[in-house]
Amino acid sequence: MELPAGFKAGATASGIKPSGKPDLGLLVGDTPLDWAYAATTNLAAAPCVLRGRNLVAADGALRALLVNSGNANCATGAEGVAADLRMADLAAEMLGVEPEAVLTASTGVIGVPLPVEKIEAHLPEIHLSTEIDAFAEAILTTDTRVKLSEQRLPGGARLVGVAKGSGMIHPNMATMLAYLLTDAPLPAGEPRQRWGAVVDGTFNQVTVDGDTSTNDMAVLISSGLARPVPAELFWEAAEAVARDLARQIAADGEGAEKLITVRVAGAASDQEARLAARAVAASALWKAAVHGNDPNWGRILAALGYSGARFEPERCRIDLQKTTIYDGGAVPFNGVALSQAMQAAEVVVEVDLRAGEGTGEAWGCDLTEEYVKINAEYTT
Amino acid sequence: MELPAGFKAGATASGIKPSGKPDLGLLVGDTPLDWAYAATTNLAAAPCVLRGRNLVAADGALRALLVNSGNANCATGAEGVAADLRMADLAAEMLGVEPEAVLTASTGVIGVPLPVEKIEAHLPEIHLSTEIDAFAEAILTTDTRVKLSEQRLPGGARLVGVAKGSGMIHPNMATMLAYLLTDAPLPAGEPRQRWGAVVDGTFNQVTVDGDTSTNDMAVLISSGLARPVPAELFWEAAEAVARDLARQIAADGEGAEKLITVRVAGAASDQEARLAARAVAASALWKAAVHGNDPNWGRILAALGYSGARFEPERCRIDLQKTTIYDGGAVPFNGVALSQAMQAAEVVVEVDLRAGEGTGEAWGCDLTEEYVKINAEYTT
Repeated sequence: MELPAGFKAGATASGIKPSGKPDLGLLVGDTPLDWAYAATTNLAAAPCVLRGRNLVAADGALRALLVNSGNANCATGAEGVAADLRMADLAAEMLGVEPEAVLTASTGVIGVPLPVEKIEAHLPEIHLSTEIDAFAEAILTTDTRVKLSEQRLPGGARLVGVAKGSGMIHPNMATMLAYLLTDAPLPAGEPRQRWGAVVDGTFNQVTVDGDTSTNDMAVLISSGLARPVPAELFWEAAEAVARDLARQIAADGEGAEKLITVRVAGAASDQEARLAARAVAASALWKAAVHGNDPNWGRILAALGYSGARFEPERCRIDLQKTTIYDGGAVPFNGVALSQAMQAAEVVVEVDLRAGEGTGEAWGCDLTEEYVKINAEYTT
Repeated sequence: MELPAGFKAGATASGIKPSGKPDLGLLVGDTPLDWAYAATTNLAAAPCVLRGRNLVAADGALRALLVNSGNANCATGAEGVAADLRMADLAAEMLGVEPEAVLTASTGVIGVPLPVEKIEAHLPEIHLSTEIDAFAEAILTTDTRVKLSEQRLPGGARLVGVAKGSGMIHPNMATMLAYLLTDAPLPAGEPRQRWGAVVDGTFNQVTVDGDTSTNDMAVLISSGLARPVPAELFWEAAEAVARDLARQIAADGEGAEKLITVRVAGAASDQEARLAARAVAASALWKAAVHGNDPNWGRILAALGYSGARFEPERCRIDLQKTTIYDGGAVPFNGVALSQAMQAAEVVVEVDLRAGEGTGEAWGCDLTEEYVKINAEYTT
């Protein structure tokens, strides 16, 4: 996929991943880049996240983004902080920009020192081009496929999103890296706040296993080279890209065979709708039921019941794959037909809480034996 | 195991469980019973829980407890409420007591009408004795073994606990039923509040899959036939029995092969210590790592980081099976030896947050392929 105007990207294999797969991605702006940033709330956040927060606070423009996969450089002490700074220095030196204009990111195993000398040795190999695909591949860990999404804006501007996900995916942020790149200027009027709102409704509504990771970030980056776009159109497009990437992350959750989409309407507020949707998408029991094509709506109702959203169980309605299965009480349905309908790439749960006007959506994936296998043997 | 003085119990197979296993348990007091009650906070609570809350509020004595397994009688509408009342009426009629003196409980699948006529037909078969074992077996669902615990009190009084657990186990309450029976009088001075505190530190610290069930209760019941016991001794014994049952429930979680115990010290408060312990015990990634004997402490640190407990990652300490693996940073350890040490029936994580004086404990189990298998095909 082609990058928006003003961006170049490339990648290489530095040897951090024992598999020898690409693990180092570089994204560069031809000119200073405007940006908005959202990152993990985990207290054990990695040096790259702490550094990113400082860069945001300092309000400077970005020139480059350097990402390694295969090692999260988290819980690696003072040495880890130094390694993260070194990453920024190396990219800055090579590109002839200030280190403070280089955002870093690391994803992978926690607690293992980052072999930054491998990055030093292989960074110069990176060939920059106007295609994002090599970068998209280099940021993956246990993902099985690259995650890209695109929206065209009026006047020829574009929004291109790239992300990685897989395990340890849960609000607020996960082992998730997401970058939305655009040549449209960021609209005036608190773009960081608007970006935070987009992230809350999309990336923060993805749950793979309930674990919030230490290294995650969602960054919106603009070269500003295209003509300005009306703010509402811009944010709609940004939300569409973020939503598409969020769905791709959920669908490619570790061991996942199916995407679970949960839409909640009629909640007392949008926030409660999101809470309720997330509880269903995150329920281990419902995730296992989806894996087994089992229309066990009791597990949906139970998850709604402990979600924290206010509603009356004897008033709410639940649809599964467009079939109403609960409406203030059990609704008779053809279990065999519905189980067959669940044998799809996407299982959709729609809930009407009948308690207000709030709506929200969340995405997850089924819980499989493969998830257990992947995560039972990761470091050893 | 023998019941405390003043109690009798028995069980039968009413045919609610298709397997034909015992599924109806009756517990009776020779005289009116004093009691304290804690139940699920799930909004979709079952009729038995709603009725139990009303009985508590009315402050009457208990004479009997009737429990069926195999069907939760939850989300079964007005018919379900009637079925629950009918259970109480049937027991009351047979025993010659008021229906308001009969506590009911149901556990099993949600949303299927309870065939109360089977209870009516088979209740009279129950043979009451001074042994609790048949009752303990009849309340099980996917549990693989009965859960009993006992403490002797000064002066000859006893505390006998019985519980069932398995899936859908998470604070606050789960597919969990727990009854603590004693012939000691409940100590004066807010026994219900004290019981709530015991439940918070024990049953509410068990997590199998993060799902809070609709039907759960932990009830302390006293015949008062023995001599009074000093309050502190009584509550210590009650906590010991509750803790033992909580551990048994976690160890027998669906598909579990190992008990995970997490002890947190040095938290800003006991509440934060419990939060932190629970986050680690509930982490799908850590549960899978325990299954694979993988000393992946990064997952422990990440779970502590998103738990909500306040601490500094560069100050805390983590021990696994008595080996320090993190102390403000990675501590070198023998991975092969530690992986071998994890091949035990119990894996113990001890954390010192070094942020205060709060302590707490939580229990969980490893995440296995078997958990997925059990829950992927439950109703169909």
